[in-house]
Amino acid sequence: MSKNITLKDIAKRAGVSYQTVSKVIHNQIQVTAEVRSRIQAAIEELDYRPNVAAQNLRTQSSHLIGYSWKLDDRYSPVLEQFQHSVVESAENFGYHILLFPQRADRDLYTTYAELIRTKRVDGFILSSVEYNDPRVATLEHLNVPFVSFGRSRENEHTPFVDVDGQTGSKAAVQHLIEQGHQRIAILAWPESSRVGSERLAGYWDAMKEAALPIDPEWIMRGKGEIDYGYEAANKLLDLPPHRRPTAIVAILDTIAIGVMQAAEACGYSIGRDLAVIGFDDMAVAHYVKPGLTSLRQPINEVGQRVMQLLISLLKGEAIAQKHILLPPELVVRDSSLGFVPQSH
Amino acid sequence: MSKNITLKDIAKRAGVSYQTVSKVIHNQIQVTAEVRSRIQAAIEELDYRPNVAAQNLRTQSSHLIGYSWKLDDRYSPVLEQFQHSVVESAENFGYHILLFPQRADRDLYTTYAELIRTKRVDGFILSSVEYNDPRVATLEHLNVPFVSFGRSRENEHTPFVDVDGQTGSKAAVQHLIEQGHQRIAILAWPESSRVGSERLAGYWDAMKEAALPIDPEWIMRGKGEIDYGYEAANKLLDLPPHRRPTAIVAILDTIAIGVMQAAEACGYSIGRDLAVIGFDDMAVAHYVKPGLTSLRQPINEVGQRVMQLLISLLKGEAIAQKHILLPPELVVRDSSLGFVPQSH
Repeated sequence: MSKNITLKDIAKRAGVSYQTVSKVIHNQIQVTAEVRSRIQAAIEELDYRPNVAAQNLRTQSSHLIGYSWKLDDRYSPVLEQFQHSVVESAENFGYHILLFPQRADRDLYTTYAELIRTKRVDGFILSSVEYNDPRVATLEHLNVPFVSFGRSRENEHTPFVDVDGQTGSKAAVQHLIEQGHQRIAILAWPESSRVGSERLAGYWDAMKEAALPIDPEWIMRGKGEIDYGYEAANKLLDLPPHRRPTAIVAILDTIAIGVMQAAEACGYSIGRDLAVIGFDDMAVAHYVKPGLTSLRQPINEVGQRVMQLLISLLKGEAIAQKHILLPPELVVRDSSLGFVPQSH
Repeated sequence: MSKNITLKDIAKRAGVSYQTVSKVIHNQIQVTAEVRSRIQAAIEELDYRPNVAAQNLRTQSSHLIGYSWKLDDRYSPVLEQFQHSVVESAENFGYHILLFPQRADRDLYTTYAELIRTKRVDGFILSSVEYNDPRVATLEHLNVPFVSFGRSRENEHTPFVDVDGQTGSKAAVQHLIEQGHQRIAILAWPESSRVGSERLAGYWDAMKEAALPIDPEWIMRGKGEIDYGYEAANKLLDLPPHRRPTAIVAILDTIAIGVMQAAEACGYSIGRDLAVIGFDDMAVAHYVKPGLTSLRQPINEVGQRVMQLLISLLKGEAIAQKHILLPPELVVRDSSLGFVPQSH
């Protein structure tokens, strides 16, 4: 492989001066078609590639996008799928993704400011955005192009794409009501969780529209996955028969798995005695028996829309809609079918 | 925030010439400690950051590492964990990761050559390396620093870190033999799979060392996940009693889940009548009942060792050991315990 081909080599091959080659390449002069094609031929014959660092210095663009997510040990199939989608979309626009995990031990402002000021990246994508997310405020203050997957109160002026969890859990509860359920519980997250509050709001909406009373005991808040579901379900199933829920919506599939295990251990048949619905349609939803009804997020589309918005920002284009909400899809399986109401 | 601070500003503030500042910063001249400290103070007071593109042009280093993996729709918790580990390790060395998925529709040589020649990245990390992996041959031919997670026949001269699947499945089979099993089957992958062949080799090793005969029917080869396990287990359990296996090792946890479902549908009690072992210790191994015995890969360590090797290559350091094999850990759960041998 030939290495270190310079503009001098091109000039020599094309039989023109170095200055001519340089100005033609940088579109600084007009030359005849014949000269241009001689230079082009020399570039191809010598397989000349400009140094990206030099090119970026000239264009003041890195063609790199920083992707910031919260680095922790929890596995997240949703974030993995989001990253795949973003990487593919970015490549279609001629960009690459630079991974830039957020760590608790870092000074955000300095780090982001430095990445931008040193032209390391042209803009940012954020995921796992929560209430009072300091990244949103920091990037807005730095006047840096960015788009977030997930919205925060701070996102009022900045673009985001998100999945509409409220619409999703409303659809789940409406499906349960159609199946004949009236006593429906929900295993939610603590109040500090933005995603959790949205999903809980959809539960309220559906119960209210159907004029179904809500026993305060039916709204549980907790953290964790399978253990949380297991313990919460045990408490709910310990309620006296007339207050005991016949359906439980869990805010995450793995919490729903815990519910199913607890209910089976108490002798309940999932579907017939107790309906269970999860969220995220993880692979595990297929593996359990009966199959788990779940809400599937349109993650590929989220990634594509995030990237389209960011590219528009980078190009300085006008953006018609900077807040995009996409509905999840209810995937019905046996865990929410076959309900047989009891006499009490 | 002050912007676009240049060396001229530093020179003015420090009361020295532009040439002096430039040469001091680039270590091209010696100056008195007093002058150096005046320049340093000016840099700090004005919060000067050099443009990374300019810096990279000078040092001929991007401080970026390309990470190449096979982009497909299959979710892989192992690769997700590997990426986390690599990102963290890279940051500790002052590097960032540029995502660079491999697609079937791309001309490998041109793409890699261009990324290197344009100084976009300093080196590469590969994952999902298979037999006859064209990436390994291409990067070796391009004389580019790279380290692969996984080994290929082509890796003879190039560094890799891998998990020793052969040792892992040997340990799994030995554990089954200790539990009293003699008729042990394995659900493997097609012969073209390097990872699959290594895991199968460990099965052979353990059976041979224990002088246990192997019925050819016990070695299955197939593709897929839960469906493959389900169908393969049905065939194995259809064998006449004296040839029917009492234990099945699956090459992947999700295949093992299919085995468990098929066995339960046939009335077998997992553990007591049929032992099942999976591979990768996915989250799902905890969720099923009984818990699935599985082989856990030391992925965090793999990521750290890959990055250490690559950094050594980039620095031109001598490498004592360029082929690193790490053993997986057998995590025993109830799916392989409690065996009660039958009379036949």
